[in-house]
Amino acid sequence: MIAKVLVLLHEKKYALVRETVQQMKPVDIAEVFDELHELEARETALRLFRLLPKESAAEAFSYMESDVQQDLIGSISDNELRFILDELYMDDYVDLVEEMPANVVKRLLANSSEGSRALINQYLQYPDDSAGSIMTNEYVYFRPHITVREAFDIIRKTGVDKETIYTCYVASPARMLEGVVTVKELLLADPDAKIEDIMSRNVIHVHTLDDKEEIAKLFSRYDMLSLPVVDKEERLVGIITIDDAVDVMQEETTEDFEMMAGMAPSEDAYLRMPVFSLAKNRILWLLILMFSAMLTGALIEHYEAAIATLPLLVSFIPMLMGTGGNCGSQASTMIIRGMALDEIELSDFFRVWWKEVRVALLCGSVLSAANFLRIWLQYGVLSANPEPDTVMIAAVVSLTLIATVCIAKSLGCMLPMLAKRLKLDPAIMAAPMITTLTDALSILVFFSLAVTMLGSRL
Amino acid sequence: MIAKVLVLLHEKKYALVRETVQQMKPVDIAEVFDELHELEARETALRLFRLLPKESAAEAFSYMESDVQQDLIGSISDNELRFILDELYMDDYVDLVEEMPANVVKRLLANSSEGSRALINQYLQYPDDSAGSIMTNEYVYFRPHITVREAFDIIRKTGVDKETIYTCYVASPARMLEGVVTVKELLLADPDAKIEDIMSRNVIHVHTLDDKEEIAKLFSRYDMLSLPVVDKEERLVGIITIDDAVDVMQEETTEDFEMMAGMAPSEDAYLRMPVFSLAKNRILWLLILMFSAMLTGALIEHYEAAIATLPLLVSFIPMLMGTGGNCGSQASTMIIRGMALDEIELSDFFRVWWKEVRVALLCGSVLSAANFLRIWLQYGVLSANPEPDTVMIAAVVSLTLIATVCIAKSLGCMLPMLAKRLKLDPAIMAAPMITTLTDALSILVFFSLAVTMLGSRL
Repeated sequence: MIAKVLVLLHEKKYALVRETVQQMKPVDIAEVFDELHELEARETALRLFRLLPKESAAEAFSYMESDVQQDLIGSISDNELRFILDELYMDDYVDLVEEMPANVVKRLLANSSEGSRALINQYLQYPDDSAGSIMTNEYVYFRPHITVREAFDIIRKTGVDKETIYTCYVASPARMLEGVVTVKELLLADPDAKIEDIMSRNVIHVHTLDDKEEIAKLFSRYDMLSLPVVDKEERLVGIITIDDAVDVMQEETTEDFEMMAGMAPSEDAYLRMPVFSLAKNRILWLLILMFSAMLTGALIEHYEAAIATLPLLVSFIPMLMGTGGNCGSQASTMIIRGMALDEIELSDFFRVWWKEVRVALLCGSVLSAANFLRIWLQYGVLSANPEPDTVMIAAVVSLTLIATVCIAKSLGCMLPMLAKRLKLDPAIMAAPMITTLTDALSILVFFSLAVTMLGSRL
Repeated sequence: MIAKVLVLLHEKKYALVRETVQQMKPVDIAEVFDELHELEARETALRLFRLLPKESAAEAFSYMESDVQQDLIGSISDNELRFILDELYMDDYVDLVEEMPANVVKRLLANSSEGSRALINQYLQYPDDSAGSIMTNEYVYFRPHITVREAFDIIRKTGVDKETIYTCYVASPARMLEGVVTVKELLLADPDAKIEDIMSRNVIHVHTLDDKEEIAKLFSRYDMLSLPVVDKEERLVGIITIDDAVDVMQEETTEDFEMMAGMAPSEDAYLRMPVFSLAKNRILWLLILMFSAMLTGALIEHYEAAIATLPLLVSFIPMLMGTGGNCGSQASTMIIRGMALDEIELSDFFRVWWKEVRVALLCGSVLSAANFLRIWLQYGVLSANPEPDTVMIAAVVSLTLIATVCIAKSLGCMLPMLAKRLKLDPAIMAAPMITTLTDALSILVFFSLAVTMLGSRL
């Protein structure tokens, strides 16, 4: 459909364009605008915008990328702009104001009602990661003493502009949250029943400053469609809807992926990020880890004499480092994800560690045995020119391997939990960090064992 | 609250228990049962189950872990079981049947109506990753020619047992999906209007065999609360609700995390997995990667003579390998996540690669410069015993570093996209795989350059 509209626009078949977009969802229409923006077809975008029914245009607007929105705002009249702003839900309006440069914000506010301006200013105060930053004020609420019939009248009268009508909130004249009632309950109730008699009083709610990641978890735990937000005085000030909670879940997951790969969280989709920003997000950790890896290098330097005598030892380093890295990232990934899903708590520390130690011994034994066999065959039995100390070398490597796996799995589970204990994001203690530490320890074990067990030669 | 109930149960204050659980959500009550199961307090669990209002008991049941459910089924009467099964939504019922051992399933089916049995058997046919496996048949639908008033009557009469009533489906007598109408639209419409005049005809729907991961993406793209499922003949057979879509998103993300760390996807939460299963999920990739790392070892062996002459070279290996691994995992993580969110398409291949190359040159230059300086200072200028070829060694390491970063970033973006092209999960081409490949290439470049540039000494 999106491609079809682009072709029709290119062929200037505007009647057909109008017909096609009428069958499209707002998010798909927005994507047409995003594509036009990439093609720098500003005039066509404006033309398409004016072809759309006004409501569709406003709805599509809320789904566009912010640079596309900015372009469009630059082309349309104040009248058109006022219509859009009027149709936008408060949470989308706040997002828009946050994304636009100062001169555009000025024009937006100039075209808003005084009430909206005051609300916008209030919403802009909430920190980025708080409930306040994703809530909206388009919800239905009533007083506890009205009847179901009256409630339906209120919904019919005010519902058209609300982001959701399916969960209605019950509040006192002072806006204290008293209960919640769903449209399903209203439909199944006697029309003359009082709201206070059918509402649930035990309402799950959050505060404006609560962490939005925790809020997203509430949605998935309690299968809710919306969640009320109250201020410090427990007054109802807004709601959060499930679509925004789902967005938060995905953003937080993306952030975890990025941190776990040693990057600063990105502000935009990959393809929309300039090369310089991508590099900037990655370079800090690369530098830190590169300098940390020099510690391992320094350890190796310490054993230069041993290496000069038996350079074969060096050929095991990639295998030891690689396996340590992989074991560590397996453990840390399981723990970080488990904590993100609240499946693992800090109080499980010893239980988790003990589990990892046993997993490490199991995996380590299999890897060691495979490795011992390989070395014994390759450098001993099957070699044209057998190495005299094959068995001893195989033993050194295999023992180091078991130690490495145990170290990697232990660090992999302990460091993320430690980070959480210190109120840091556990995701920073992921593969890159743990690999670097494991490398150093594994090299230390390797050469210490080698010098001890092959001492006569080194 | 959960802890409170546990304490009250322990103190046998059952009246207080009953009072407390009445204020709790079903998922929280289910957690009390999970805790009791861990304490092996079977009798207490049964007692609590019988203290609960029947509906709450049945609802909490659907949130319990499957081994807890199995225990409970083993303790309760056929009558109690029938009540639970009657209350369960079809999707939860199917999940239950899938989790239970054969003898329990037999008892479940013996206590189900013939209609349910037939439906269960039909639902069990759908593959695990299909729409059919997460759909339910508890939805509201009507014929197109009825009025809004009649529609409300149907909702009032049948809605109590439906998983959602907020989106109603309109179907022909042959159950062909014709449209969709929301309760919001119904509430705002004239009671005498015909459904066919207010419904949307352009319904986003999926087929029973569609991939559930793609379906979860539809939910987040179109901000829907439920989605209709049709069979091959386009007949409406079920719906999927947003809570199940959110679960799918989280499962798929967890699977990506696991695959990206070189593990087989797990079937259960970390703490519930036996040590042996955890080890089994991890060992295959560890073995594959360990043997692949031996390739790098073999390359090093090839340069034994150079190492024996200038063992200092070895001390740079951890830094080169570490940086390569980190760069590769940064790139692959961005690309895999971008593809999972549909932000990156296969057609973006060259655009992505060109982006990564430029990022690699930027990052590589900074890392190289830092490294050159470090080597020049440490082994040359600031050394008590300066190494005669310091500048040359620094040049070899720095050039290798730039090459490594470029190789790592290129492989990091290309391999996941290649995997997708081959219809494999891109997540298998993540850090462990790319690190292993980068290691080998980086060592090759390093020693080739060393031999060429320091030839006179090696």
